[in-house]
Amino acid sequence: MMDVSIILTEMGRKAKAAAAELAQADSAAKDEALHAMAEALRNHKPEILEANAMDVKQAEEDKLSRPMIERLTLDDKKIEGMARGIEEIAALPDPIGRGVSSHVSPEGLEITQVRVPLGVIGVIYESRPNVTADTAALCLKSGNAVILRGGSEAVNSNRIIAKLLTEAALSAGLPDNCIQLLDLTGREFTTALMELEDLDVLIPRGGRGLKAAVREHSKVPYIMTGDGVCHIYFAPSADPEMSVPIAVNAKCQRPSVCNAVETLLFHEECAPALLPAVCTALEAHGVELRGDDKARELFDMKPATEEDWATEYLDLIVSIKVVSSLDEALAHIARYGTQHSESIITNDYAEAERFLNAVDAAAVYVNASTRFTDGGVFGLGAEVGISTQKLHARGPMGIEQLTSTKFRIRGNGQVRR
Amino acid sequence: MMDVSIILTEMGRKAKAAAAELAQADSAAKDEALHAMAEALRNHKPEILEANAMDVKQAEEDKLSRPMIERLTLDDKKIEGMARGIEEIAALPDPIGRGVSSHVSPEGLEITQVRVPLGVIGVIYESRPNVTADTAALCLKSGNAVILRGGSEAVNSNRIIAKLLTEAALSAGLPDNCIQLLDLTGREFTTALMELEDLDVLIPRGGRGLKAAVREHSKVPYIMTGDGVCHIYFAPSADPEMSVPIAVNAKCQRPSVCNAVETLLFHEECAPALLPAVCTALEAHGVELRGDDKARELFDMKPATEEDWATEYLDLIVSIKVVSSLDEALAHIARYGTQHSESIITNDYAEAERFLNAVDAAAVYVNASTRFTDGGVFGLGAEVGISTQKLHARGPMGIEQLTSTKFRIRGNGQVRR
Repeated sequence: MMDVSIILTEMGRKAKAAAAELAQADSAAKDEALHAMAEALRNHKPEILEANAMDVKQAEEDKLSRPMIERLTLDDKKIEGMARGIEEIAALPDPIGRGVSSHVSPEGLEITQVRVPLGVIGVIYESRPNVTADTAALCLKSGNAVILRGGSEAVNSNRIIAKLLTEAALSAGLPDNCIQLLDLTGREFTTALMELEDLDVLIPRGGRGLKAAVREHSKVPYIMTGDGVCHIYFAPSADPEMSVPIAVNAKCQRPSVCNAVETLLFHEECAPALLPAVCTALEAHGVELRGDDKARELFDMKPATEEDWATEYLDLIVSIKVVSSLDEALAHIARYGTQHSESIITNDYAEAERFLNAVDAAAVYVNASTRFTDGGVFGLGAEVGISTQKLHARGPMGIEQLTSTKFRIRGNGQVRR
Repeated sequence: MMDVSIILTEMGRKAKAAAAELAQADSAAKDEALHAMAEALRNHKPEILEANAMDVKQAEEDKLSRPMIERLTLDDKKIEGMARGIEEIAALPDPIGRGVSSHVSPEGLEITQVRVPLGVIGVIYESRPNVTADTAALCLKSGNAVILRGGSEAVNSNRIIAKLLTEAALSAGLPDNCIQLLDLTGREFTTALMELEDLDVLIPRGGRGLKAAVREHSKVPYIMTGDGVCHIYFAPSADPEMSVPIAVNAKCQRPSVCNAVETLLFHEECAPALLPAVCTALEAHGVELRGDDKARELFDMKPATEEDWATEYLDLIVSIKVVSSLDEALAHIARYGTQHSESIITNDYAEAERFLNAVDAAAVYVNASTRFTDGGVFGLGAEVGISTQKLHARGPMGIEQLTSTKFRIRGNGQVRR
């Protein structure tokens, strides 16, 4: 345990020193580094693919799930996507130094609030090696030093990617240790990162297990992301022409992401006609259905258990419940939802407004798929994750959400009366 | 321990239910409640003073410090101040529902980000009973339910104040349990509050001990406030006419608050003339001086120990150090400062700009007293505390800092491509 603590303390110290320098770097230097990072990935595709092949081989031997291996596997196109992603981040306006407010106090103090970096950011994530590149680029653009903790299954891929990014940043004149990868295996290192006081914020990207571990161990401020038990509620006036495509899109277009729907709630008035139509379409897309008793009276499906309502499947499975009122739907969402993305399908104005107001979630929809909750769609540019807590940032987090502020006060001798 | 957990869980459940209702309350209802709360305090001064006298008597028996007993003691004027404070909060514009941004996505989704309450706020504070009224009013105005954990030395005062506020809120039609006081003595209740998952945010208002306990125990997001080891650095070009009044103001005007200065740094070029002038003025105001060797060569004072540099005296004591460069001053502030309020006294433009940029603190000053860091001066209205962390809010926190946001998305059948 001594070693773990020494290693982490040293990483924290280095990150803090890098952060102090990086906070003063101008936009041109940061953008030059980002372009160099993108180029480095493009120029070293064979090495990246070779390292990735080792990870994939190991994952297959370890019999990881098919979706996990898919997320882990890189190819030429995915690496090109990583490089383009970094270039898109470079093209965003620099948030640092931007004024948030400015006024002159009655005493004649000029008080300006400006954006500054958070400082040192720790990010814990799993399998997908492209997160290494995205996250490093978002943190660097916003002037933050980052300590990356990728999944052990992607360690070889992450090592080569982090090495290329670090060298490129250095070659462009940015300080050492802007980007550090914590690549030592063992859960004790992840726990030690959660306890590292030099972190200004910890961003865990993962499921409920990681969330619980962070709650338990973290000694630094954190932002919970990506926990998505999302619902769609079909009200009595739901348009069937709209309902079926929205249900299919929200469940099937990309089932492994956090804004995919996990539970469908049908009002008992529309359920007899609408539920079978939605279920037929979902089954045609290979979705496994699990319903409560009332749902199963209307369509043949497996029974849903109490556990189902609280489960983020991230897979082609959906749970279905028939409710007798909007209140019952709201209560179900309040109880089992994760405050991520919730949608109502209705043509009733008052009901739509009530849903928009009463549902406590980062994104609340009327007549649209939950799949739109995303930094790009919401106008924030690339995202580092989707916050499901209320503090600091809620919903998609772009580079502005990776900043803090500071007040600069210029006086000429003022004292407080 | 079982009892503690049951009691806290129940308080959390009640607060959550109140928060859901309060989030939907309109501004008029909240302001009516606030005016009723102010009136209730005014109309029950004798009962409040009677309860307060019990606390003061006990504090004297327990031999609490004189400043602590002063902070604890209420009188007619202080109660009137509490009532006026609540009325000022009522007069602020309601932050809830206010639009932060709005745009139409390429798919035709109308996406609006609006302010919503945080939900359930826990506040831990000490001695001063007026904090009970201020905090309850700020939380209520911003639509949040609050669980108040005041110091045990003020328990009788807090009980009567909380009772009057709660009854007034209820009489104005707000839900039960908007304001709850956790008045059971014992540190285990404070710890249990830090672990209460129903809290959307915990705001500890206190010193380093409380800060350490929160880091250790908290299982919820928190905002650290009010830890202030503040510095003033006198550069070679510091104007003596300005320097002496600023030093005296920052140290003596109200030594017990977090934005009071604790350490003075003098550049060796200006120290021979300026340090004795500043020290003479401070001594005339009853300030105890503690200096490093170089400072003691210039003025007779006690030696400062390593511990002094890290101490928030909150008293008429100041530590003094002579440095040989701006870099040394910046390094000292980075090492011992608490990122609260830092000031440079200089007439050198480049040096002033460098200090403003390089110092990592909530408020950075040129040629002014640190005492100005305050919600009122900074244009935020009344404050619930001064955040010394970077996440969510930094510096003075007004009612807007007690809110989160939510995205409302209105569509007409959109699915993600």
